[in-house]
Amino acid sequence: MTASANTNASHAIAPTAAGPTALALATLQALRAELGHAAVLIGDEVPERNRNDNSSQLPVRPLAVVRPADAAGVSAALKACAAAGLKAVPQGGLTGLCGGARPEDGWVAISLERMSGVQEVDSASSTLTVWAGTPLEVVQRAADAAGLYFALDLGARGSCAIGGNLSTNAGGNRVIRYGMARELVLGLEVVLPDGTIITSLNKMLKNNAGFDLKQLFIGSEGTLGIITRIVLRLHGKPRCTMAALCAVDGYDSVLALLNAARSGLGPLLSAFEVMWPDYWQVVTERARVQAAVGQGHAQYVLVEAQGTDEAVDGPRFQAWLEALMERGLLKDAAVAQSLADVQGFWALRDACAEFFQVIGPHISYDVSLPIGRIADFARDCKAALLACDIAGRPAGAGIESIYYGHIGDSNLHLVAWSDGLSLADQPKAQMDATIYGLVQQYGGSVSAEHGIGTQKRKWLGHSRSEAEIALMRTLKSALDPQGLLNPGKVI
Amino acid sequence: MTASANTNASHAIAPTAAGPTALALATLQALRAELGHAAVLIGDEVPERNRNDNSSQLPVRPLAVVRPADAAGVSAALKACAAAGLKAVPQGGLTGLCGGARPEDGWVAISLERMSGVQEVDSASSTLTVWAGTPLEVVQRAADAAGLYFALDLGARGSCAIGGNLSTNAGGNRVIRYGMARELVLGLEVVLPDGTIITSLNKMLKNNAGFDLKQLFIGSEGTLGIITRIVLRLHGKPRCTMAALCAVDGYDSVLALLNAARSGLGPLLSAFEVMWPDYWQVVTERARVQAAVGQGHAQYVLVEAQGTDEAVDGPRFQAWLEALMERGLLKDAAVAQSLADVQGFWALRDACAEFFQVIGPHISYDVSLPIGRIADFARDCKAALLACDIAGRPAGAGIESIYYGHIGDSNLHLVAWSDGLSLADQPKAQMDATIYGLVQQYGGSVSAEHGIGTQKRKWLGHSRSEAEIALMRTLKSALDPQGLLNPGKVI
Repeated sequence: MTASANTNASHAIAPTAAGPTALALATLQALRAELGHAAVLIGDEVPERNRNDNSSQLPVRPLAVVRPADAAGVSAALKACAAAGLKAVPQGGLTGLCGGARPEDGWVAISLERMSGVQEVDSASSTLTVWAGTPLEVVQRAADAAGLYFALDLGARGSCAIGGNLSTNAGGNRVIRYGMARELVLGLEVVLPDGTIITSLNKMLKNNAGFDLKQLFIGSEGTLGIITRIVLRLHGKPRCTMAALCAVDGYDSVLALLNAARSGLGPLLSAFEVMWPDYWQVVTERARVQAAVGQGHAQYVLVEAQGTDEAVDGPRFQAWLEALMERGLLKDAAVAQSLADVQGFWALRDACAEFFQVIGPHISYDVSLPIGRIADFARDCKAALLACDIAGRPAGAGIESIYYGHIGDSNLHLVAWSDGLSLADQPKAQMDATIYGLVQQYGGSVSAEHGIGTQKRKWLGHSRSEAEIALMRTLKSALDPQGLLNPGKVI
Repeated sequence: MTASANTNASHAIAPTAAGPTALALATLQALRAELGHAAVLIGDEVPERNRNDNSSQLPVRPLAVVRPADAAGVSAALKACAAAGLKAVPQGGLTGLCGGARPEDGWVAISLERMSGVQEVDSASSTLTVWAGTPLEVVQRAADAAGLYFALDLGARGSCAIGGNLSTNAGGNRVIRYGMARELVLGLEVVLPDGTIITSLNKMLKNNAGFDLKQLFIGSEGTLGIITRIVLRLHGKPRCTMAALCAVDGYDSVLALLNAARSGLGPLLSAFEVMWPDYWQVVTERARVQAAVGQGHAQYVLVEAQGTDEAVDGPRFQAWLEALMERGLLKDAAVAQSLADVQGFWALRDACAEFFQVIGPHISYDVSLPIGRIADFARDCKAALLACDIAGRPAGAGIESIYYGHIGDSNLHLVAWSDGLSLADQPKAQMDATIYGLVQQYGGSVSAEHGIGTQKRKWLGHSRSEAEIALMRTLKSALDPQGLLNPGKVI
């Protein structure tokens, strides 16, 4: 990877005072010669999609985008970047919310879009081997076609890439049963910042032959290596889904219901979603989503279970719920009688995706808290946001907020806004300081499932000690001493 | 931590030409002054138990054993070791089979035996916080007393320490349902080789605030840090256990039964143990364990499921099994009618613990293989061992072997021996080379659940590439540049 390649190619862009160096351009041209013309797009050739992720920041055109066909191509790209001192950012489906895949000026984007497709389903091992650039939904369908189940699921399933899901350790709706993305990974192929290819495509549930290296790359947001291939763990396909929408009289009852679900439904319990009355009101009154349970309750819970036999598990779920009604724990409840009912219950929870239409410009937050403290946090956070002093808003009504989330997983989402302000004018700095300040006070995490990227980096110290962050830096320096792979992300 | 402390204490041992240096002794005396007399035992004071683990090697008296009361004490001990250039080995229950906790001459053993006890059970979070030196069984009982369940279980439960379980990423019997020890950990407190205390006592299922540092210390056998406290994930307590002992006509039927169990029992499936006919014969004829299923079958499978309602799950299990009988998949089967029956089935599988009485001196192996290839491996391995040329043994009957294991987890155990030879005379080198050579050929792992320690270090390269091992060394150097914490273990 030297500067000896053809620098007169038609797509070369001229170096300027502030532009790329001759070495950078020569290196990219040489890479193009090695990987093929379509694999390296330079300057204005860089497509719009590679200029941003979904973190609501302004797009930035990187110096180039490289689209390798395999790990060897990624290795060549990273070696080229190292030789020319160029910074690189890995890109998958570009659906990330925290800026992890967004390029900076002068960087090289390494997109996995051409490394897409399922390589193998091994039904004896119950594993699926896949290229990192494959959309999540393609993985789910391939597992389904083989009579098996890939448990990770989230809203962006059609466009997010499985490699990105792993690099952010994605969560989603069924973590309480199947775990985060991390728990669904058995093997990885990864390219280190220096171009070394680490092939650990393990298919075995038990493998204690030395350090479990794959853990380094899951959840580190492309800062320690680029994941190129993955062996995923599949599960048996659920044969039926039961769901209930429950109303209870307070958070103590939410906790009692959660414990009853853990013990009574055991491993069938697949989701435990809680909605606060402020959220419920917006969804049922303003978004006009139909609800099978009435207004005026202290808390609403969507409980879902997946079973293996409808004839057995359906009545069991119904009986479990009836016993809780008799105990007086539930003030109201509706049980899904059909898949349409299940989807109807989820429509209440998924309505948050439409909030821009419903409540206008707002900021979404994703935090974790110890489950027992979530209601106190929500109460204090709501009051603190209202008390914020916002120009043009009456005192005591500064920032409004509503609360909901995957409470069985400790994961609270909240949406905050000041009425009448554009998105750009929303008091994000005050929101951040108020919300993350309280998260710190309550011993929570500033990121439950979306990662840190650049957008939450400032707040990492609210959830991690100096010693923890220093250890993260030690790892980063050990694997990427030049600091060229996705620098400034996470830490 | 200087050499200024009292070196005239009554328990000081005199330095000799080959013995500890004056700096080492002064450092240990200073540590004793800091941590208390009983916390530092020097020279002949070192108890027998701290001189070895369970890896069948000769005991070695370390220079000293330090028994801190908390992370600060562990930190002081590691800082003292670093200052004096002393190597340290962490010790828990000392039940490890691969030499990970065995000291070497001149080392300091850091024993967690005084850091024992459960700190808290948080039923809302469904977590248990515990000191690393606590026996596994104590953890299990504390969870049970709180109406919850800690899922890790293995034979040494009464004496192994939970910190050791994590440092080796222990497996056991129910990995197919609950995962390895790694999957049961939410937070850790760890002391790094330089004495830095990393406190990450996270209780939240979802927490993506930066790199997941705890993963580094789980399964790295005390080479990167010493685990001092742990937050464990608890599950709902199973309310009933169903089990069946099945006989099938070959390994294809084992795989069909496994797939039927995954889809028909779903997450209730808690164990899938397979016994080969050679193992079955030893257990039923030589160990005379009663079996509810007759001789002469190609393969025996113990299927276990845990349910939440005996009235529902018991009949469901029975119906599932009957359908398989009708399909002709099972040649014979017995269903447990009582907990005593369940224990009776497990007695067949657990009989391997008594093999020294039954088959005399032998060597036990713990390997993993892709599930679809295990039968071919077992066939080839048995033939290759018999073909070994062993002095005093007839040609073609060199080394005998029998096969069994947690096949649902990809984990095969095998026991090998040459009749008439003492343990010391068993042809272990030939066994190792034959067995691990085939493991490599079949794409398996030389350690499924016991770790590497010193005993399998020579064979790590059979399951890990040079690039993988180099990355392990990079991590080791980054965290322990002086190479003082458990050096020579794993890598």
